[in-house]
Amino acid sequence: MMTRRLLAEFLGTGLLVAVVVGSGIAAQRLSPGDTGLQLLQNSTATVLGLAVLILLFGPVSGAHFNPVVSLADWWLGRRSGGGLSGGELVAYVVAQCAGGVGGALLANVMFSVDAGLAATERAGTGLLVGEVVATAGLVLLIFALVRTGRAALCAPAVGAYIGAAYWFTSSTSFANPAVAAGRMFSDTFAGIAPSSVPAFVGAQLAGAAVGVLLVLVLYPAPTPVRI
Amino acid sequence: MMTRRLLAEFLGTGLLVAVVVGSGIAAQRLSPGDTGLQLLQNSTATVLGLAVLILLFGPVSGAHFNPVVSLADWWLGRRSGGGLSGGELVAYVVAQCAGGVGGALLANVMFSVDAGLAATERAGTGLLVGEVVATAGLVLLIFALVRTGRAALCAPAVGAYIGAAYWFTSSTSFANPAVAAGRMFSDTFAGIAPSSVPAFVGAQLAGAAVGVLLVLVLYPAPTPVRI
Amino acid sequence: MMTRRLLAEFLGTGLLVAVVVGSGIAAQRLSPGDTGLQLLQNSTATVLGLAVLILLFGPVSGAHFNPVVSLADWWLGRRSGGGLSGGELVAYVVAQCAGGVGGALLANVMFSVDAGLAATERAGTGLLVGEVVATAGLVLLIFALVRTGRAALCAPAVGAYIGAAYWFTSSTSFANPAVAAGRMFSDTFAGIAPSSVPAFVGAQLAGAAVGVLLVLVLYPAPTPVRI
Amino acid sequence: MMTRRLLAEFLGTGLLVAVVVGSGIAAQRLSPGDTGLQLLQNSTATVLGLAVLILLFGPVSGAHFNPVVSLADWWLGRRSGGGLSGGELVAYVVAQCAGGVGGALLANVMFSVDAGLAATERAGTGLLVGEVVATAGLVLLIFALVRTGRAALCAPAVGAYIGAAYWFTSSTSFANPAVAAGRMFSDTFAGIAPSSVPAFVGAQLAGAAVGVLLVLVLYPAPTPVRI
Repeated sequence: MMTRRLLAEFLGTGLLVAVVVGSGIAAQRLSPGDTGLQLLQNSTATVLGLAVLILLFGPVSGAHFNPVVSLADWWLGRRSGGGLSGGELVAYVVAQCAGGVGGALLANVMFSVDAGLAATERAGTGLLVGEVVATAGLVLLIFALVRTGRAALCAPAVGAYIGAAYWFTSSTSFANPAVAAGRMFSDTFAGIAPSSVPAFVGAQLAGAAVGVLLVLVLYPAPTPVRI
Repeated sequence: MMTRRLLAEFLGTGLLVAVVVGSGIAAQRLSPGDTGLQLLQNSTATVLGLAVLILLFGPVSGAHFNPVVSLADWWLGRRSGGGLSGGELVAYVVAQCAGGVGGALLANVMFSVDAGLAATERAGTGLLVGEVVATAGLVLLIFALVRTGRAALCAPAVGAYIGAAYWFTSSTSFANPAVAAGRMFSDTFAGIAPSSVPAFVGAQLAGAAVGVLLVLVLYPAPTPVRI
Repeated sequence: MMTRRLLAEFLGTGLLVAVVVGSGIAAQRLSPGDTGLQLLQNSTATVLGLAVLILLFGPVSGAHFNPVVSLADWWLGRRSGGGLSGGELVAYVVAQCAGGVGGALLANVMFSVDAGLAATERAGTGLLVGEVVATAGLVLLIFALVRTGRAALCAPAVGAYIGAAYWFTSSTSFANPAVAAGRMFSDTFAGIAPSSVPAFVGAQLAGAAVGVLLVLVLYPAPTPVRI
Repeated sequence: MMTRRLLAEFLGTGLLVAVVVGSGIAAQRLSPGDTGLQLLQNSTATVLGLAVLILLFGPVSGAHFNPVVSLADWWLGRRSGGGLSGGELVAYVVAQCAGGVGGALLANVMFSVDAGLAATERAGTGLLVGEVVATAGLVLLIFALVRTGRAALCAPAVGAYIGAAYWFTSSTSFANPAVAAGRMFSDTFAGIAPSSVPAFVGAQLAGAAVGVLLVLVLYPAPTPVRI
């Protein structure tokens, strides 16, 4: 059963990165020079693809696809039960990061892009604040839905959230260390230079902490609501 | 409990304005000179973000995020019970307006925009008629769903409504005094000059009155329907 | 009760035409010369707005907003019960057409457009075939959902259908005589010259007949399915 | 009853191809020279149209519209029961291919396009890998939903999946031999040269095999989950 769960996290994170990177490459090729239209194409594909992947793998692994989500699940589960164990957390994170890299490589193969590390620097205080906000909102959303008995809405809600966050955060909302890891391995529209990744991951961890704090303040106990 | 509700209204309205203003800045930067594409990006991000925010904060505060919605809730509740009290109404409105301003400032920080008041004048009879229509429709929609036992549909329905109203009303549908207040504090795509705000708020109050009247005519009593 | 139902049909059809015409004007002004982008803006606003209007007025009047839908409801109801009576059908159609014209005039006021009849000729065999297909699909969709106990899905499904039909039919899918009537009264992007309307309405009636026939073949009896 | 099912597969596949080809022609005419915007219009229309068609015909035939989906249904049904019989499989495939061709011809008539075979070559290893990925994901998604008791979500989920796959796979995700057959018969944006079809169908069959394998590994037995 654990093997199936790790396979689901590996495939789900991989396909998520393939969606982000692949649609970024398609956008860049089909609308050269029009970055606003490219981001609309890229974000639209991600809204749809992410929602589908959560539907698809959710019943197997919970469809985390994101180390900070798994970390928050473990942390919140220590208090109220039901979360990942420490060992499961480590295995999930490994599967997610491996999947993230694999997804970028798959996109490269599909679009006949040469392998190579991304050169796009993504830095600056504004961007890192954006990444904190993006990750805090993501973690708050997921666990607010879970604690109100509405986990079945995670698929459309998380897809929609990321679609908005592509635009309203200055970082275009990576909000996911495994996705950041994967996006290093494609020197295309959606890439991120390896040197920019550590600060992004730090901002994501800070955002996750803010998100968990807000979950505890706003939803201190499970309170099921009617869907 | 009241503190949690006010925190939810503050955060929800703040993030709503951050979505509107932040995606407006992103759109303006990525698609310079193409205002039609900018509004499509801005409205798409708002559809998605607003729906998510209502899902997220609804179980805590009702997810009003809007002084005229709180006002209508208080007014309709005086007749049929279940609405905000007068004191709660005042506290909600204060939290919403503070959130609205805070959200604009957050967007400015994320996108490294200098603080400053907006210079975009928004005036004229056509625009104010648009704002009356936009607000009347919003109030009618929310309370029609509530009175038919379909409050759970408010998240996607209100998001979709605002997305349509960006386009079909000449004012791009502010329909919300707290959002108008916030949008004064960002001199960007989504900004509104302070001198234009009083007439907008007047039109929004008139629209809310029309909306409440239509609720009373069309849905005089609760009539649950199957979702 | 009948007054409320006719008010709902009047307001719903009016707001539908205001969405179609208003978003068409906004698109034309914001994206001049780019008709493809204009239609994407126009169709996106319509998908969202139409779904919301069906949610909003459905519990009051059934949210027909369309004479051929009311006609099909009457015809199918004669065989299996539950449809409009002949007198109700006439009243519905009058309210819908009045609403359609009112909605175009409202859009003109909001956008400060001078009143005037549309000059856009819409003719040719291909367009009329498109209109037959568009209307047949609309009628089939609505009554298939009703006969399978899924009327609650009409709001998103009909919105989505019209959004697709804007693009895949050559006529951009009017599929509605009351909307065609309204769109004569705005000489803008979404207008239709009065001389083109009779053939459009004829094609819509033919399409409705095809749609009803397909309903009777594919769903001869009510067959509820799980939503 | 079988006649109704085959009629549903014929009409559903035909309208699906009419949506893909028709919206492609509209996009090409309205946004000449802007292939990125064209694909956004084309994919948006397909997301909406495909979801609606599955809702519409699902209760009659299961809404396969796709020979590899029917093939997977037959194969998986041999193990666990409930699938198509061998004779039904053949009849479904014939109805789907006939519908696919008919849909392309209908689009040609609506848009006054001369009949003719498509000249667009679609070839290369990257494209074929894309087609394997697209088809594997489609098959996995459908049967994962069915095996978890969520078949009612197939309509929005499959629509969304194809919308993402237009962008993230290099082949724009045909993922369907009947659609590929139909798209040979329209020398327009969405066409495919007959010489490119055999390799596409081969890749689709390989993808379906991968998808079925993943279904068996991830969902070895029915495991209903709460929607």
